[in-house]
Amino acid sequence: MNARAGGGHVASHIDYRPGLLRLLDQTKLPAKTEFVDVRTWQAAVEAIATLKVRGAPAIGIVAAYGLALAAHELASRSVDDDAFSTAIELVAAGLVAARPTAVNLAWAVERSRRLARELLTSKTPHQDIAASLDSLARTIHEEDIAACHNIGRHGAGLFATPASILTHCNTGDLATGGYGTALGIVRELWASGKLARVFVDETRPVLQGARLTAWELQRDGIPYTLIADNMAASFMHRGEVTAVIVGADRIARNGDTANKIGTYGLAVLARAHHLPFIVAAPRSTFDLAVESGDEIVVEQRRPEEITTFAGVPCAPAGASAANPAFDVTPASLITSIVTDAGVLAPPFAVAIARLGVGTTAQAAR
Amino acid sequence: MNARAGGGHVASHIDYRPGLLRLLDQTKLPAKTEFVDVRTWQAAVEAIATLKVRGAPAIGIVAAYGLALAAHELASRSVDDDAFSTAIELVAAGLVAARPTAVNLAWAVERSRRLARELLTSKTPHQDIAASLDSLARTIHEEDIAACHNIGRHGAGLFATPASILTHCNTGDLATGGYGTALGIVRELWASGKLARVFVDETRPVLQGARLTAWELQRDGIPYTLIADNMAASFMHRGEVTAVIVGADRIARNGDTANKIGTYGLAVLARAHHLPFIVAAPRSTFDLAVESGDEIVVEQRRPEEITTFAGVPCAPAGASAANPAFDVTPASLITSIVTDAGVLAPPFAVAIARLGVGTTAQAAR
Repeated sequence: MNARAGGGHVASHIDYRPGLLRLLDQTKLPAKTEFVDVRTWQAAVEAIATLKVRGAPAIGIVAAYGLALAAHELASRSVDDDAFSTAIELVAAGLVAARPTAVNLAWAVERSRRLARELLTSKTPHQDIAASLDSLARTIHEEDIAACHNIGRHGAGLFATPASILTHCNTGDLATGGYGTALGIVRELWASGKLARVFVDETRPVLQGARLTAWELQRDGIPYTLIADNMAASFMHRGEVTAVIVGADRIARNGDTANKIGTYGLAVLARAHHLPFIVAAPRSTFDLAVESGDEIVVEQRRPEEITTFAGVPCAPAGASAANPAFDVTPASLITSIVTDAGVLAPPFAVAIARLGVGTTAQAAR
Repeated sequence: MNARAGGGHVASHIDYRPGLLRLLDQTKLPAKTEFVDVRTWQAAVEAIATLKVRGAPAIGIVAAYGLALAAHELASRSVDDDAFSTAIELVAAGLVAARPTAVNLAWAVERSRRLARELLTSKTPHQDIAASLDSLARTIHEEDIAACHNIGRHGAGLFATPASILTHCNTGDLATGGYGTALGIVRELWASGKLARVFVDETRPVLQGARLTAWELQRDGIPYTLIADNMAASFMHRGEVTAVIVGADRIARNGDTANKIGTYGLAVLARAHHLPFIVAAPRSTFDLAVESGDEIVVEQRRPEEITTFAGVPCAPAGASAANPAFDVTPASLITSIVTDAGVLAPPFAVAIARLGVGTTAQAAR
């Protein structure tokens, strides 16, 4: 796709042509810029599960391309409509199960699956269904880039003077179709002369901040300071942070937000230091099927992500470790939720109901 | 020294005989149990500065042995009293400058330096001064182990039922003469059946929690769960933490406490979750020359500790990173300070004044 996403940078980490999805392998960054070829939906699942691609919007896009890959393969095998339909349902379920917390995955897969169903009902040839799924995946990808630019614009509007933004994990090009959510706001602030500096949490255990966010900001010439996660409080206390802006993996009806582990702690710290705590996410991240954060499934990942660091063991052999990949921030700690459709203010339950989103994900269950 | 420090474990990471100090190289743990031979005071400075030995009480002990090593070397060279005295002053200043934040270093060096001065005044032969500095260093070492046991006993008295303790950095055998401060309380709780579990913050960037605390607890069969620093808030929120117990590098007159970076954030989080936040430190960690935390010098370490791990880069080349090694927790966020002389309660300024400590460090400036 090689979409040029503004701000002087190129977003090309997800590239698709029918039958071949090429992904920048994010596990190799920043040491190597290496692409992996994904030719099957199973390989797409593997790429998502092993974090070759991560970020809620990005894995939704990749899953949509993954379903298109499956449709092409099925179309080439001349199966009947029933078999095609059954296979598409199985593939859709497999893609959704690749990671449990980000709702964008279910949302994107459901959009594609619904289109496939409709086209089957109208007796569309399977090759044409596959081509339509290609187009829809591209649309989801392009819509996401556009949504990021809108998030950036709306979010930047919250700041009047040059701000120092603390952010967590990676919410940039690499986490989205391109441009970014929380990092989209940062890019927009930078472009409009309203950014002083970005404090980048390294974001243990997978170090998306150190490996990916620092890499994006450095590439784009945006001033940043990389810090260990446990330093955030200290920089807040010293008055060096204007606001915290993070992304989201799933936002419940009441505004409770699941995001990368460590987000909840930052929200508590922001409140204690009287700083705005801002969540940035496209409408595809809202899940109206979920009443509150209590219902959100938090993925537990391998303890080896904690007991090793950059591949090197850093704890005694057989160490006991916990590794929840996400946490849930209660809506009460969130100042604003910036979406592509505008900025939501508390009470979020009301503002989210007005957005009119989230029914697709609901149907995907 | 090979002091047996109770609780079924052997504390032998600092071993001294005249002219030779043998240290367990903590930078190699947990992969390797490797000792380094320290024969000069310069090598002692190097061991402290490069974190081969770390932990406020431990570096005080090593510095006292370091001054004894210097005295032996000077005694063997048959210099006159003036030269001996000048050299001891220079060595003392060099040892104190090895790391700026922990006051125990200045405290221990000042005790030894004062003894050397007194013995010089009374025309004691240099060999005898060196032997006396050996004895004093051993005394400082043994006193610290005894202080840790007292801290453990006093601290455990704060708990009635089995507690889940969250701790940060390493405050155990390896950080002290033996047994530990915050970890001394943990050991005492475990010995008396009042410990459910320890949550061990990995403690970026140097990972003293993952590498050292997990190693000690695993060796001693104490149940623990290693977590990334950014997970602490989440475990507090889920009600899995009874109290936070940390060590200290310097405690000001008013109770403000400098400790490993991340401590301040934990104190804010503990307050937000209505959990006790307990500081454990021997009397040698108090510095009455410092009115409040604002006056404490926070060591800034190399950014490479953030951008690499075990030699492996984890951020883009040329990444900009900050690396304050400590932060200061205001007294207002501390529930109790557990010392070897008993438990201090707020208002700490009053309780600390009653302790009658800290004048040696003051004199060391």
